[in-house]
Amino acid sequence: MSSTMGTGPVGEVEVGADAIEASRVNGTAVYNTEGDHLGHIYDVVIGKRDGRVKYAIMSFGGFLGIGEEYHPLPWEVLKYDERQGGYVVGITIDQLQSAPRYGADARPDWATSDYGRRVNDYYGVAY
Amino acid sequence: MSSTMGTGPVGEVEVGADAIEASRVNGTAVYNTEGDHLGHIYDVVIGKRDGRVKYAIMSFGGFLGIGEEYHPLPWEVLKYDERQGGYVVGITIDQLQSAPRYGADARPDWATSDYGRRVNDYYGVAY
Repeated sequence: MSSTMGTGPVGEVEVGADAIEASRVNGTAVYNTEGDHLGHIYDVVIGKRDGRVKYAIMSFGGFLGIGEEYHPLPWEVLKYDERQGGYVVGITIDQLQSAPRYGADARPDWATSDYGRRVNDYYGVAY
Repeated sequence: MSSTMGTGPVGEVEVGADAIEASRVNGTAVYNTEGDHLGHIYDVVIGKRDGRVKYAIMSFGGFLGIGEEYHPLPWEVLKYDERQGGYVVGITIDQLQSAPRYGADARPDWATSDYGRRVNDYYGVAY
């Protein structure tokens, strides 16, 4: 692309676009602020009408030993950290263990608000 | 859930949540306003930081005969139509044929703004 349209010094990552296919967000690591690796993004939940990413579903494979479990995290509690190349969320492993989660056979119904409200309440995020 | 927390008459779909896993948006049909079936959603492009769905990538398999091609559509031009169970976009097949698209071997770089700007320009949506 033309070198005259640069929005920053050569070699600097342009700020502003920073977009990615949802399918490629999946697999991104999630850490807490203590640097613990909590899991990775398994899927994101989006509003069909408003086009907002509402939840990142973090999978937790292996942590509990059996099967894979899914923790929805309100998008608002996730911060992308360029340095770590992953998302950082300010919760402890203890907090996560009592957080709303579900197994592969108990997928919540995102079309209604019940489950989403419960998740937001847990993390103190307005629904 | 408690029957006292209903937000509408029994049997009516609750408005307000209407969320869905991105992985399940994939496959949703896309029509134009004439009712032509244009393709289906293949993926969505989201902003890593702002959490906005920026583009729906519509795949166009078969229409051109060979291979699969991808048309990114700005989220703003898509309207979800409950009745058809798909998205409706106000473009003709002719317009679509000259719209930005790419093949499986030429995935654009969504991290920078060049390609996104081109898509938005084509559809007359502010970047």
